[in-house]
Amino acid sequence: MKIARLLVDGKESYGFFNKRIIVKEEVENMLDIKLPNNMDEFLLDIKDISIPSDAKYLTDYKLLPPITKPSKIICLGFNYLDHSKEQNIKPPDEPVIFMKPRTTLIGAFDDIIAPRLVKELDYEAEMAFVISKRCKNVNKREAMKYVLGYMVFNDVSARDIQFKDKQWTRGKSFDTFAPCGPYLTTKDEIDDPYNLRIITKINGEVRQNSYTSKMNLKIEDIIESLSKVMTLEPLDIIATGTPAGTAMFSNKRFLNDNDLVEIEIDKLGQLANRVRFV
Amino acid sequence: MKIARLLVDGKESYGFFNKRIIVKEEVENMLDIKLPNNMDEFLLDIKDISIPSDAKYLTDYKLLPPITKPSKIICLGFNYLDHSKEQNIKPPDEPVIFMKPRTTLIGAFDDIIAPRLVKELDYEAEMAFVISKRCKNVNKREAMKYVLGYMVFNDVSARDIQFKDKQWTRGKSFDTFAPCGPYLTTKDEIDDPYNLRIITKINGEVRQNSYTSKMNLKIEDIIESLSKVMTLEPLDIIATGTPAGTAMFSNKRFLNDNDLVEIEIDKLGQLANRVRFV
Repeated sequence: MKIARLLVDGKESYGFFNKRIIVKEEVENMLDIKLPNNMDEFLLDIKDISIPSDAKYLTDYKLLPPITKPSKIICLGFNYLDHSKEQNIKPPDEPVIFMKPRTTLIGAFDDIIAPRLVKELDYEAEMAFVISKRCKNVNKREAMKYVLGYMVFNDVSARDIQFKDKQWTRGKSFDTFAPCGPYLTTKDEIDDPYNLRIITKINGEVRQNSYTSKMNLKIEDIIESLSKVMTLEPLDIIATGTPAGTAMFSNKRFLNDNDLVEIEIDKLGQLANRVRFV
Repeated sequence: MKIARLLVDGKESYGFFNKRIIVKEEVENMLDIKLPNNMDEFLLDIKDISIPSDAKYLTDYKLLPPITKPSKIICLGFNYLDHSKEQNIKPPDEPVIFMKPRTTLIGAFDDIIAPRLVKELDYEAEMAFVISKRCKNVNKREAMKYVLGYMVFNDVSARDIQFKDKQWTRGKSFDTFAPCGPYLTTKDEIDDPYNLRIITKINGEVRQNSYTSKMNLKIEDIIESLSKVMTLEPLDIIATGTPAGTAMFSNKRFLNDNDLVEIEIDKLGQLANRVRFV
């Protein structure tokens, strides 16, 4: 199932993606069922439903981030073999992490807004996964039980601030610096999460082009390792790192005003966010 | 006002500290008023009330963290002049930050629980402030309007992991690694937040002994600078950095099983947390 958080007539709702978006109320009418009013409630107690093929598509809506109020957003550094290689770094045996505040989250087609104080704006295409159930000290063999689903995630970064501070958090914490979506794809839809193409285009030009197979620590490793440290809570977002090809570590062609950043991952959909310097 | 989050008969409540704890219901009876059921609601729309001197004290309760579900916990590095000096680091002109997940929060007398994989466990006494109102791009002259109050905070750190990773987040994110409280002291009670003694004792021996006057970036600077980056939300916690004297940067006498960590800040009260390795 692909579940999208929507703004419809100024009100938050949710719907299902099946070639196009079908709003919750249409699904309720077609299937004669009652779904929770709130998308978080639906996600926390998910029911598998078959979206009817003759449902009416919704035409007038805005996509919101699939998750809006996670208790935490954890991002991994150095987690793609091609990205570690371009930096001459040995892939770490445990996750190197930082966190982004929830105020960074925006939807799949929202603008990335950077104040002019940011001098080196960069993209990082990532696959993120979302936690389904509270857990601690999880063995990697059990880890996939705690995954609700996946989404595309862009760990937007102000490189000048990130490297001035050495701690990465501030340069990655600007409002709008975490476009995600377009929807949450539930785990059951993805047979092999390590066989997905991940691609970034800037104004149509390919800049990152890799596969999730190049992930160093897999989702199972990440959950085992992080859950030794902290309790993972339902709807927490964990972004699994970016492959080679960010501006910082390739050609230094940082993002400019009005650039269009498109990130696509096989089976998980596409983000397309316009950059606006203000 | 000093407001404490309490567990009373297994139920969450709150109360007021006036030499000892007076539970909300007692205050309601004495003053013939009705207070919000939930402490967060009270904090978000705070009313100044005079706690009667003849109120009955509560005797059987447990202190919880004053804030339990902040949208973010931001901590500053290198923000005390004496701490920067012991590391030979020039105090930064902008805040160097990292975040802790909310699962780190524990009350003033709860145990700090460290798994045996942690080899170098350390304390960091800090003054934390709490945000009252949503804000962005705040000028430092207006900044104190957005402060709700203060509390004592211990940024407990696994130094071995912190410095292995270089990014500080993982080593500081273990469950229970953010004792705080004992209560929230509202801003109006503290005439000068930069004239408070801050002291750490381990098993009664003084290890940190400084003043908030040695803070490099003041609360006003921190709010101005961070709010250029991110929207600050009500009940967000910001910890302002630690003075000299942590084990890592003095005598390497890290915390051991059963150690008692006491941190006191003038007018804000005291934490006393026992270390338990498991």
